[in-house]
Amino acid sequence: MISGERFSVIYHLTGNEKEAYIKAQDICVEQTIEYPYELLAPGFIKDEVVGRIESFAPLLDGQSYQAVISYGIELAANELTQLLNVVFGNISIKPGILVDKLILPEGLLKAFKGPRFGREGLRELLGVHHRPLLFSAIKPMGLNSVQLADIVYQCALGGIDIIKDDHGLSNQTFAPFEERVTLCSEAVHRANGETGRNSIYVPNITGPANKILARAEFAKQAGAGGLLASPGLIGLDTMRWLSDEDDLALPIISHPAFQGCYVTSAAYGFGFSHYALYGQISRLAGADAVIYPNFGGRFSFSINECRSIVRGTEEAMGHLKTIFPSPGGGMTIERIPELLDVYGKEVLFLMGGGLFKQGSDLVQNCRYFLDLVEKA
Amino acid sequence: MISGERFSVIYHLTGNEKEAYIKAQDICVEQTIEYPYELLAPGFIKDEVVGRIESFAPLLDGQSYQAVISYGIELAANELTQLLNVVFGNISIKPGILVDKLILPEGLLKAFKGPRFGREGLRELLGVHHRPLLFSAIKPMGLNSVQLADIVYQCALGGIDIIKDDHGLSNQTFAPFEERVTLCSEAVHRANGETGRNSIYVPNITGPANKILARAEFAKQAGAGGLLASPGLIGLDTMRWLSDEDDLALPIISHPAFQGCYVTSAAYGFGFSHYALYGQISRLAGADAVIYPNFGGRFSFSINECRSIVRGTEEAMGHLKTIFPSPGGGMTIERIPELLDVYGKEVLFLMGGGLFKQGSDLVQNCRYFLDLVEKA
Repeated sequence: MISGERFSVIYHLTGNEKEAYIKAQDICVEQTIEYPYELLAPGFIKDEVVGRIESFAPLLDGQSYQAVISYGIELAANELTQLLNVVFGNISIKPGILVDKLILPEGLLKAFKGPRFGREGLRELLGVHHRPLLFSAIKPMGLNSVQLADIVYQCALGGIDIIKDDHGLSNQTFAPFEERVTLCSEAVHRANGETGRNSIYVPNITGPANKILARAEFAKQAGAGGLLASPGLIGLDTMRWLSDEDDLALPIISHPAFQGCYVTSAAYGFGFSHYALYGQISRLAGADAVIYPNFGGRFSFSINECRSIVRGTEEAMGHLKTIFPSPGGGMTIERIPELLDVYGKEVLFLMGGGLFKQGSDLVQNCRYFLDLVEKA
Repeated sequence: MISGERFSVIYHLTGNEKEAYIKAQDICVEQTIEYPYELLAPGFIKDEVVGRIESFAPLLDGQSYQAVISYGIELAANELTQLLNVVFGNISIKPGILVDKLILPEGLLKAFKGPRFGREGLRELLGVHHRPLLFSAIKPMGLNSVQLADIVYQCALGGIDIIKDDHGLSNQTFAPFEERVTLCSEAVHRANGETGRNSIYVPNITGPANKILARAEFAKQAGAGGLLASPGLIGLDTMRWLSDEDDLALPIISHPAFQGCYVTSAAYGFGFSHYALYGQISRLAGADAVIYPNFGGRFSFSINECRSIVRGTEEAMGHLKTIFPSPGGGMTIERIPELLDVYGKEVLFLMGGGLFKQGSDLVQNCRYFLDLVEKA
């Protein structure tokens, strides 16, 4: 009836030893049977369905404990939604519980295709093998589709590899989805014809649940080279679905909008570690690259949190491909040398507003950005 | 090009006056143009697209400020995903920003059907007009479909109005979705034949994005009376979609799994107020009832937070119907008289494990629960 194979979650639990241990015991019940434990008869449910504390030990901060809790893989039903539900469903509502890391055996991982392209596939597609990838966004919101397409053209001409919609562009009257995607796709191909590069335009398909697939299909038809999705808004599994669709077969880039509470909570002892959310879970959900706020920008991530994201994008997860970390948010061209030191070459640098700030000629700004990165 | 009509968000911002005001200014840019403000030419984008601080005032706690910020309704593109993105997309990643309340004009509200049934429609469907509604869940996970269907039967026989899947039941091998939904639907109809009631069985359709609609359609065909969805896992707009589907036309019940970080954060000055998330946003997303952890249970909500949820489910929101607050989580039958005092009659009491604890005869436990509520 059940394989006996189990997956594990490393939780950090705040409180003294007794409080933290009670939390661990509570998780075993809350995330599975959600039923009075004392009413269970001996047997299958008690032995195999209830979560199991595999280890329990103090953390170095002196204020919390680490509990490794395992669950039968059948509980996750080979579904990302239900896996996440077991990992953190109801306990997302309880204070002092943080998901630090998932440990997933191949018996469960095989249910997930993971990123279709990953680092290697994306490099292949773009024809860029030996340097960091360059990434920009078309903005500000309020421009019309012709103006946005012109920005795509200039960025591609200047050597940006991936040019995405700003994540707030959806289907506004001033730049409707189909018109914008048609013109922007055309613009990138025109620029590629001049540069000989394989830059891609990546539209934002975050939108109504019943229109996402149609928008993605339209984008593919129009010549878009990838899809931008905000899983905090459309659901992580919707991103997974887009990634898995063989008829689309487009790279997926994950945007962190509306997802912040899961990790800003980490400073208060609950939510997800940056490693787990941006690294492990983004890969399970099929992203080929994951955008997150860079350290030292206008958001609040530390350099160590950013380094942990990089580890999450590349550490072994069975057959799941490694993906690109894509630091962004308040990036400026002057910071590139410093960022090259931290990230090395396996990175997708997202520069939005900073690229416009550098000077009035956007093509020149992009070339300067590319030069800096190529020199590295 | 733009109507001039605007919607507003009441934000709470931590910090001293200067810090909080800088946060408010930042929100106006971050949530809209995400572009260097100083580079904007005078005109449409500066005047109509950038957010606008409508008011700014200290809050009584002495540690934070309230800013009312308005946005042109066109920015939301008549989409729930993009509305939420403007309200809290990128700033979800910044500390010290809480969404207290949405103020939506009819020009934007008309894009949303809202709950199909609402309080009145759900009462009509169940044929229960003058008392709180009773709600239970089938559990523990690990039972097979026959055993779960027997629990549905006993609950319905005992007078429970709505009997739902435990939110962790998806498509596990020990109780596969189609088998379980078929047997449980049959069980509730059999019990209704004996009692003359209109109890409904509500399966959990939280699952893979590409299977949700098919599961919902299967449930409808099999005779299920509603759908349980965890928007934290499938996305709020996916719930909205299910609610809007005329071919389904089933009541939707929202479960709070995986959504907790948005409100447990409120204690630390970020995220959403309980009022906004469980009340206003659940209605925008088409829920007819919203489950949340009751005060004094095993979760951490206060009685005032629960009262604010009730207000969010019933305060005026244009044509959007009022919905049922559904407190659950660690509820016991002994607490019913106290809870009747707090909630009155416009409530859907969710009792899961507590119903099993009361005694070994589940039908009798349900009848006792019903008696207590009918006496009120």
